[in-house]
Amino acid sequence: MRNFKHVVMQAKTPKQSKTTLTDVVLPGETNSLHNLFGGELLARMDRAASIAAGRHCRHIVVTASVNHVAFNKAVPLGSVVTVEAKVSRAFKTSMEVFIDVWIEDRQSGDRTKANEGIYTFVAVDDIGKPVLVPEIIPETDLEKQRFDAALRRKQLSLLLSGKMKPIDASELRAFFK
Amino acid sequence: MRNFKHVVMQAKTPKQSKTTLTDVVLPGETNSLHNLFGGELLARMDRAASIAAGRHCRHIVVTASVNHVAFNKAVPLGSVVTVEAKVSRAFKTSMEVFIDVWIEDRQSGDRTKANEGIYTFVAVDDIGKPVLVPEIIPETDLEKQRFDAALRRKQLSLLLSGKMKPIDASELRAFFK
Amino acid sequence: MRNFKHVVMQAKTPKQSKTTLTDVVLPGETNSLHNLFGGELLARMDRAASIAAGRHCRHIVVTASVNHVAFNKAVPLGSVVTVEAKVSRAFKTSMEVFIDVWIEDRQSGDRTKANEGIYTFVAVDDIGKPVLVPEIIPETDLEKQRFDAALRRKQLSLLLSGKMKPIDASELRAFFK
Amino acid sequence: MRNFKHVVMQAKTPKQSKTTLTDVVLPGETNSLHNLFGGELLARMDRAASIAAGRHCRHIVVTASVNHVAFNKAVPLGSVVTVEAKVSRAFKTSMEVFIDVWIEDRQSGDRTKANEGIYTFVAVDDIGKPVLVPEIIPETDLEKQRFDAALRRKQLSLLLSGKMKPIDASELRAFFK
Amino acid sequence: MRNFKHVVMQAKTPKQSKTTLTDVVLPGETNSLHNLFGGELLARMDRAASIAAGRHCRHIVVTASVNHVAFNKAVPLGSVVTVEAKVSRAFKTSMEVFIDVWIEDRQSGDRTKANEGIYTFVAVDDIGKPVLVPEIIPETDLEKQRFDAALRRKQLSLLLSGKMKPIDASELRAFFK
Amino acid sequence: MRNFKHVVMQAKTPKQSKTTLTDVVLPGETNSLHNLFGGELLARMDRAASIAAGRHCRHIVVTASVNHVAFNKAVPLGSVVTVEAKVSRAFKTSMEVFIDVWIEDRQSGDRTKANEGIYTFVAVDDIGKPVLVPEIIPETDLEKQRFDAALRRKQLSLLLSGKMKPIDASELRAFFK
Repeated sequence: MRNFKHVVMQAKTPKQSKTTLTDVVLPGETNSLHNLFGGELLARMDRAASIAAGRHCRHIVVTASVNHVAFNKAVPLGSVVTVEAKVSRAFKTSMEVFIDVWIEDRQSGDRTKANEGIYTFVAVDDIGKPVLVPEIIPETDLEKQRFDAALRRKQLSLLLSGKMKPIDASELRAFFK
Repeated sequence: MRNFKHVVMQAKTPKQSKTTLTDVVLPGETNSLHNLFGGELLARMDRAASIAAGRHCRHIVVTASVNHVAFNKAVPLGSVVTVEAKVSRAFKTSMEVFIDVWIEDRQSGDRTKANEGIYTFVAVDDIGKPVLVPEIIPETDLEKQRFDAALRRKQLSLLLSGKMKPIDASELRAFFK
Repeated sequence: MRNFKHVVMQAKTPKQSKTTLTDVVLPGETNSLHNLFGGELLARMDRAASIAAGRHCRHIVVTASVNHVAFNKAVPLGSVVTVEAKVSRAFKTSMEVFIDVWIEDRQSGDRTKANEGIYTFVAVDDIGKPVLVPEIIPETDLEKQRFDAALRRKQLSLLLSGKMKPIDASELRAFFK
Repeated sequence: MRNFKHVVMQAKTPKQSKTTLTDVVLPGETNSLHNLFGGELLARMDRAASIAAGRHCRHIVVTASVNHVAFNKAVPLGSVVTVEAKVSRAFKTSMEVFIDVWIEDRQSGDRTKANEGIYTFVAVDDIGKPVLVPEIIPETDLEKQRFDAALRRKQLSLLLSGKMKPIDASELRAFFK
Repeated sequence: MRNFKHVVMQAKTPKQSKTTLTDVVLPGETNSLHNLFGGELLARMDRAASIAAGRHCRHIVVTASVNHVAFNKAVPLGSVVTVEAKVSRAFKTSMEVFIDVWIEDRQSGDRTKANEGIYTFVAVDDIGKPVLVPEIIPETDLEKQRFDAALRRKQLSLLLSGKMKPIDASELRAFFK
Repeated sequence: MRNFKHVVMQAKTPKQSKTTLTDVVLPGETNSLHNLFGGELLARMDRAASIAAGRHCRHIVVTASVNHVAFNKAVPLGSVVTVEAKVSRAFKTSMEVFIDVWIEDRQSGDRTKANEGIYTFVAVDDIGKPVLVPEIIPETDLEKQRFDAALRRKQLSLLLSGKMKPIDASELRAFFK
């Protein structure tokens, strides 16, 4: 039997799931060097990313994995931090979300990229069963580039968890030729 | 001696200070009815509003007063809440910030207005002395309406704190005629 | 059918709802200037005020609005802060609560007024329907003064939310004559 | 050289250090049975007791020990909890603080004793050196009873930590005869 | 009717309940002297001790009392703190848990004893009725010493709460002879 | 001039950095499905992993990246969770840390693997300059397997960040042949 709901499921752009979480860094959120505590930043990224994934699929979502987070720049106490999350690619029932973290200079207002991260979420129904999600249509160059790389990352993830054999990771193999 | 910095201080629009804090409601942030705890919402509004005020004046800002917050609608556990803050009017060294709070329906994505609030911040230098801030040029109808009302609210506040006499509150007197 | 409970509902004094929340300021509750974070203070005031409102009406109460909070004095890390809340006036199903915030000097024990705030709560039954609350009989001069001003504030609030016309705000009109 | 400050140090009553911390129990402060988490209650008791000790001696105080806390009654989510701390006895540089914890019935307003605890604090100067504290003059029967028992508890504590020999614990020996 | 489960209940060693909670001290967990806040340490001890008690009896456990906690050494911001809990003695339905707190020197890795505490837990079934717990067989000298002292502490606790008469506290009486 | 300290720096085993953080899941740490909130788990893993890295190198460490975290199993409210971190491989100034997360069945005491994660830390001196760290000598089969895979992960990470060319990623190329 066909599931009508999924038949009409329309592809969406990354922009449609864009989620912005701008907030300050208070003393209770710092580490002993008085920078934003890594765990607190990971938590903020998780919150923003899960909202973005939910906006894309309009279902309950659960964090499946953190694929990568790079801490390039410490975020000092008192900073204004913007966490921006957008779905970068959708697979059958999962979504890869790209998260960019920016710090804003108080005097000039200039924004500097501080960190970035990639999380994966799965859409589930009320009893926790995975459900299909809409596809993503990337628009900007950066979105297209992230969309393409997402497939390689997925193969890599399946590979690392033993769910795919190296021989079948066609995208990755091409990348290393 | 003239302070060159203030001489060149250009007026800004409310949009230039717009701050968006989208976040979820977790169990640790609820009251015993499982809705977002009022104090937690007031804190989120304070955080977003102080960033907006800082973006307008590019100085340290301190909360001077909460002028009004209306809790029109409970925000249940698990909600996606968007707190949006924009400077509505600037006075000599202070700024009124308007904060709109929205809840988003998970299924449809529709946004409903949950609450709104008005906070006032003062810009200070490193030793806590108030400093001049740029003027606001409202653009949209709503921004113009809030800009006009801000003066009445300021007179009211001065009146209530005994710093202005009823006879001098010209804007308010006109309002009640 | 008449509700016997309300028939016997006796007026109470502000003192009967008096709630005292004395606590310290720890680093996790400060802002980046190492003073009590505004949002944390608003939350403490909300907690104390909701207890005072509950003590007055002996029902579940929900925060309806923050009418005004003035931050007159920063509260430094390590301070002993006393938040004192008392119902200042009761209307049909709502209560205005006045909150005074004091800091205590560690050496001398002298108390200084740091801030004050006014919140409004509504009494509800188990399914969230508003219920009648007892009247307030102010006793001290300060209580009487706050009781009188509460009516003007209520008219102002109705006015600002568009639920009352300026022409009907008799108390306020008299105030501005 | 004599320290004039200590010469004029006047004895105080327990009432002069009385500290009241009335607060609600929110979901973020409960255990998995939805009662106030034991650790959170111990923390509230510590905060109130340290304020009481500071009020008695007007110095910085540090927690030296928790002598006893009895958890007689679970404190459910949503409860109004009052933590009341008073110095029960002062020794040379230390103070024993008695803490009574009450829950309030929302309907009737009746208070029930939920727990009680005994903490010890030491008064220190800015470089952490212990300083003398004023004596306590108990007034009520309960205060006198707690004052007397405090000496036995102190001997017991010295005994348990090996700083006193059983033969020297005169008060305790008398108690067990 | 006999309860088969309890018939086969085997005695356990303290080691079998050993629980280790190693964690850092972040700014949000400090007091105004920038050391680990006493209440936060009491909470960590409660968490570790309740796990140890649960491991011993494999039932729900509730904190019955804090018998003693000595704060011998301040734990500075940034420290690595290890809280180690083991059941020291089991009575019919209750367990005494000994908690040792260590700080680790970052350079040398040497561990220093910072504090120690003794908590008591009661095992309960799903409706809160106390259930029998296995006995403890101490192995090391320290475990044996704590096992023996536990009985004196229990008599003392019953004595202080008026549930035992001095004449019946045989262990304690022997101790003071 | 030679740095004597580094000359004598001895290789260490993973076991020497092993860090155990066993804790419960309280309501304030859950998401709206009443499982441990993903961000809170990422934070606990960060805390344990940074202690392990610090134990290996005896220097200040800062989180450089989260390489991978797989959320295989939800961790329900009330669970006993053990986070175990060990350094899996050391490079010049950085350390890869493997973190295993276990849940314990309350009745049987059986442990189930819930999640695992890989973080990278950099050792720095007091002014934030990277410093050399000791090598790792893996002992068990699992440690050896993780040690080998760490090099592939490092090449992958350099590759993804554009700091290495595919042609130079010898380990990875061999893997995909």
